[in-house]
Amino acid sequence: MSDSDPLVIFTPSGKRGRFPVGTPVLTAARQLGVDLDSVCGGRGICSKCQVSPSFGEFPKHGVTVTGDSLSPFNAVEKRYDEKRGLKPGRRLGCQAQIMGDVVIDVPPESQVHKQVVRKAATARAITLDPATHLYLVEVEEPDMHEPSGDFERLSAALEAQWGIAGLTAPLPLLARLQPALRKGDWRVTLAVHTPRAGAAPELLEIWPGFYEGGIYGLAIDLGSTTIAAHLCNLATGEVLASSGIMNPQIRFGEDLMSRVSYAMMNPGGAAEMTAAVRAALNDLAQGIAEEAGVAPDAIVETTFVCNPVMHHLLLGIDPVELGQAPFALATSGALNLPAAALGLSAINPAAHAYILPCIAGHVGADAAAVALSEEPHKSDDLVLIVDVGTNAELLLGNRARVLACSSPTGPAFEGAQISAGQRAAPGAIERVEIDPATKAPRFRVIGCELWSDEDGFDAATAATGITGICGSGIIEAVAEMRMAGLLDASGLIGSAEQTGSARCFPEGRTHSYLLHDASAEGGPRIAVTQGDIRAIQLAKSALYAGARLLMDEMGVDTVDRVVLAGAFGAHISPKHAMVLGMIPDAPLDKVTSAGNAAGTGARIALCNRAARAEIEQVVRRITKVETAVEPRFQEHFVAANAIPHATAPFPELAKTTPLPQVNFNTGGGGEGGRRRRRRG
Amino acid sequence: MSDSDPLVIFTPSGKRGRFPVGTPVLTAARQLGVDLDSVCGGRGICSKCQVSPSFGEFPKHGVTVTGDSLSPFNAVEKRYDEKRGLKPGRRLGCQAQIMGDVVIDVPPESQVHKQVVRKAATARAITLDPATHLYLVEVEEPDMHEPSGDFERLSAALEAQWGIAGLTAPLPLLARLQPALRKGDWRVTLAVHTPRAGAAPELLEIWPGFYEGGIYGLAIDLGSTTIAAHLCNLATGEVLASSGIMNPQIRFGEDLMSRVSYAMMNPGGAAEMTAAVRAALNDLAQGIAEEAGVAPDAIVETTFVCNPVMHHLLLGIDPVELGQAPFALATSGALNLPAAALGLSAINPAAHAYILPCIAGHVGADAAAVALSEEPHKSDDLVLIVDVGTNAELLLGNRARVLACSSPTGPAFEGAQISAGQRAAPGAIERVEIDPATKAPRFRVIGCELWSDEDGFDAATAATGITGICGSGIIEAVAEMRMAGLLDASGLIGSAEQTGSARCFPEGRTHSYLLHDASAEGGPRIAVTQGDIRAIQLAKSALYAGARLLMDEMGVDTVDRVVLAGAFGAHISPKHAMVLGMIPDAPLDKVTSAGNAAGTGARIALCNRAARAEIEQVVRRITKVETAVEPRFQEHFVAANAIPHATAPFPELAKTTPLPQVNFNTGGGGEGGRRRRRRG
Repeated sequence: MSDSDPLVIFTPSGKRGRFPVGTPVLTAARQLGVDLDSVCGGRGICSKCQVSPSFGEFPKHGVTVTGDSLSPFNAVEKRYDEKRGLKPGRRLGCQAQIMGDVVIDVPPESQVHKQVVRKAATARAITLDPATHLYLVEVEEPDMHEPSGDFERLSAALEAQWGIAGLTAPLPLLARLQPALRKGDWRVTLAVHTPRAGAAPELLEIWPGFYEGGIYGLAIDLGSTTIAAHLCNLATGEVLASSGIMNPQIRFGEDLMSRVSYAMMNPGGAAEMTAAVRAALNDLAQGIAEEAGVAPDAIVETTFVCNPVMHHLLLGIDPVELGQAPFALATSGALNLPAAALGLSAINPAAHAYILPCIAGHVGADAAAVALSEEPHKSDDLVLIVDVGTNAELLLGNRARVLACSSPTGPAFEGAQISAGQRAAPGAIERVEIDPATKAPRFRVIGCELWSDEDGFDAATAATGITGICGSGIIEAVAEMRMAGLLDASGLIGSAEQTGSARCFPEGRTHSYLLHDASAEGGPRIAVTQGDIRAIQLAKSALYAGARLLMDEMGVDTVDRVVLAGAFGAHISPKHAMVLGMIPDAPLDKVTSAGNAAGTGARIALCNRAARAEIEQVVRRITKVETAVEPRFQEHFVAANAIPHATAPFPELAKTTPLPQVNFNTGGGGEGGRRRRRRG
Repeated sequence: MSDSDPLVIFTPSGKRGRFPVGTPVLTAARQLGVDLDSVCGGRGICSKCQVSPSFGEFPKHGVTVTGDSLSPFNAVEKRYDEKRGLKPGRRLGCQAQIMGDVVIDVPPESQVHKQVVRKAATARAITLDPATHLYLVEVEEPDMHEPSGDFERLSAALEAQWGIAGLTAPLPLLARLQPALRKGDWRVTLAVHTPRAGAAPELLEIWPGFYEGGIYGLAIDLGSTTIAAHLCNLATGEVLASSGIMNPQIRFGEDLMSRVSYAMMNPGGAAEMTAAVRAALNDLAQGIAEEAGVAPDAIVETTFVCNPVMHHLLLGIDPVELGQAPFALATSGALNLPAAALGLSAINPAAHAYILPCIAGHVGADAAAVALSEEPHKSDDLVLIVDVGTNAELLLGNRARVLACSSPTGPAFEGAQISAGQRAAPGAIERVEIDPATKAPRFRVIGCELWSDEDGFDAATAATGITGICGSGIIEAVAEMRMAGLLDASGLIGSAEQTGSARCFPEGRTHSYLLHDASAEGGPRIAVTQGDIRAIQLAKSALYAGARLLMDEMGVDTVDRVVLAGAFGAHISPKHAMVLGMIPDAPLDKVTSAGNAAGTGARIALCNRAARAEIEQVVRRITKVETAVEPRFQEHFVAANAIPHATAPFPELAKTTPLPQVNFNTGGGGEGGRRRRRRG
């Protein structure tokens, strides 16, 4: 480069340099370290290196760009434009040559490390940098006078053309190498897997010639009850399909401990559960590929997040040690494995699997994934992250320190162990309001936007019916019952006489509250029973006690904000959760939902290698608090049994008419030792 | 260490240093980098660290060693001595503490990198440094307040106690980890595989407590016809058993090219041959383990040497490209694989396989193994190494340069395509002499030390009979016929009239020479036919032409020495080989046999990791000469057809009565263009 060479300025990076006339834009970008994609290595095939030159005066840069600053549209670009279409103003970076001073914009889709926008508004974007990339290489033909293996020449070509040295290949790919090279006339597209910067790159797939298809990854959230997967395009980060199926291990036990028991009581039981979940994963992979119209062989990466018991059963490790103190994991570190080692036969046979690290015997890779997604370790304020499920995982922390624990909430929050409970599905009551004056309820069901007292509700729900009450519905119902004076602080449902509502009817020695009665039409009678209240009290006490334990450990009495994670977390009403005492009090605008943060964490690890290193590092710094043997957990648990707030805890939540405190049974319950902390 | 601390001198290394009183000898040895073995890490369990203190005056070292220089025999040593017996004067290095100046000898069996003596007198010893070692570690118990996986604590223990960081483990071992740790009460013996210095160590096997058994390796020479294996103790280098079986691929074709043809003509044919050889390898491994009384699971390492076609078929790669120019290998580099990837299910499931690099499409890992064993690249004089088989591999070189080629000799040297030919087995004629005066033969058969004209021969061979003639026998027969004037320089057998021997009898339009006739007793009639002579001429011409081609390339007319390698090479008479013109002339004492050098190379690679790196390096520097397309090879081949030496080529080989040159057919043959070079 000399001072008389044209000046090239790339946007948005601002990188600039002088290059001799005739230098292709892609070459200049590479030399300057500009993030400009290319799969074919500048051969005018892949079109990944599209750029947008800017013309006119750029006083900021001190240059004037004329139409002659780049070489004219050439034959390769014309052919590409005719066949595929180039957006107006676009050029192929490998074809357009620098003729004069020029300002060149690299549009987002041409960046290698493009940002993937996440749906949740508060969430950071994911920088795309998956472990597997595609490269087109031209391999020298064999020469018997300079003998070398086809693989060795392929490896040399990858190094010479892409700077990637030391390729390795598993046997099945070596076996497919020779036909592919000859079919592609010594030009092949490689999928190369490099688990982390500096690791040995491994050949994962080979296609003759230029491979026009994409490569894909599956981010899998393997829960005790459901297995959810996102299918992502590894070149764009786009989620093509999301799908979930039931975990077939449910037949061996609804919750984790009953599955551990099954493994302990039945020889071969763990292997049986491993086989079941692996078969389901294959079904899920096949189904999601079909749904998205992607060849299963094009799925080359998978990431897994799961709790420790699911983790061990996925890996084929007997989870027996996780069922008893000291809850020792066989391995806690992240794992990078051939997906085939996990029995994943439905996807590319050379695909890789990355399993996020576990935090402890009760706090698994799912909690690590939540941390990766919600980043408590980067938070300036003190954040409590609650991932509600059959087992709840809690993270509390900020930049200085992050604590974690798990809490055995049981399945009540998922609608199980509730008399009219059901999973969140069309027909399930998900929102509830009770008029404090009339004690009459109104509700909404999944699949219908109308409230039950609005016109057209009956018609709109005729197809699904009103079948039961799901987790978010029961939480709202209990909180509303408390605020409507139907429930005292100890959780006792009052009689019709005590409450003044005929909806409170006796059942055995206690009372129930009738939410919906379709029995006249042969439908169900949906009531909240005293047993339902007790189940919710147990679950919310466990959750709250976990949070309190972390707050004790942190030496704080309040948190700055609360994040509700998990598919269920997304549907919980923060107000009702606080009325119920599920979570510590916090200003309502500081309680947010992160959706399926564990699944998002799996997707981040799928799309970004550096995130893997990051979470491995973060997990080592998280302090685990063990609830199972901590006496204060029991204290907090007992103390948290009450439902303290007869009104919404913050003014902005308050109903128009504050209600009197009621106490139906002066002999017990009450607010116990629970400390009240109000703010705002 | 201070100057007043006792001085410790280790022999034979001469390493020395001062250590505080009370330092265990093993600790001192480690700090000085003395090569002193230990599996248990100084816990007084393994007894590998035995040392012999020396007493008295050591003027050379300037010390006087008294009986008080080491701590007294302690309880651990007494118990070990009672249970297992310590040789007189021996101490356990981990128990004996330094009390005063002392000279300590490390006996060979206590050295980690002990020398393994090889049988062949000329061969260098092998320095023991296998890729897999045993380590006893004590692992911290899990603590739920400091949660970490059992594997992570195991890995930390290995680093703290042995300095080995970054352990990885395959899934099946992770699954077995927890029971082993608990059964061994947090003390386990690990087999750790580290393919080369600096590579990530991998957990290969785990035993609860201290594992007293050994670990073993298989060095496998996978030939077209036979598969041979040595079972070695990886801690001592000792060969416990050697065994061979037929390669079952023979049913798909006797020679390499017919197997390649089979793969080309039959869909799935290559896979069929792969399955056949893998099944045979499992049988072989099982058999040899049984023979040696070793548990198959204790076999943790394997090395393979083989020609390129066998190489590809072992790996499951279709060898079709090896059957046509330019003979491109799918991969030429060394391979380090899980043995399970080669279908080796009979040995430890986590065992490793190392396959030596190939030199070229016709010169395989077997030739590389010969180079590793015979080290032409370290030779001061110019050595020609000939590995005779169905395909012969030739190496020619010295420190400056090494050349290699292969030559298609065909199976005649192995007794195939010979009228009375057979494999080398009891009953086969292996040595032949023909009296130049009487033209009568005498011979020896395999399994009997007597010559056929000696007393007791008939009785000694009654059990086996005289069944045919093997490769070395036919070579000697043809050479002797030539020296006895039964054969002219063109290879034509004379008639009874021409030779004056009634043993020459007409068969069709040519003559045969009767070697042995047992037809009267219903036995075979063993003769050398004209066809046999032609077959041997073709084979020896190919071999000789290959050697000449290498000599041309090297620009030499003679070689300093010749090494005959291969099981067959060990049985060839150098004199007869030179009379026949199989090999270039060289002084007789410069023609040596290396036995199964390829198998030895496999054994070296098994016992010594550095040798793997060495041969990978050497192979890259070997210049391949391709015979198949080299016009001079054809010229040399045609020119080498004659059998030039009517007498032994060197005085020391000459028979008492030199014989006249004969030429039965003046119309053809003769000595052609063959250049004669005599020395001595």
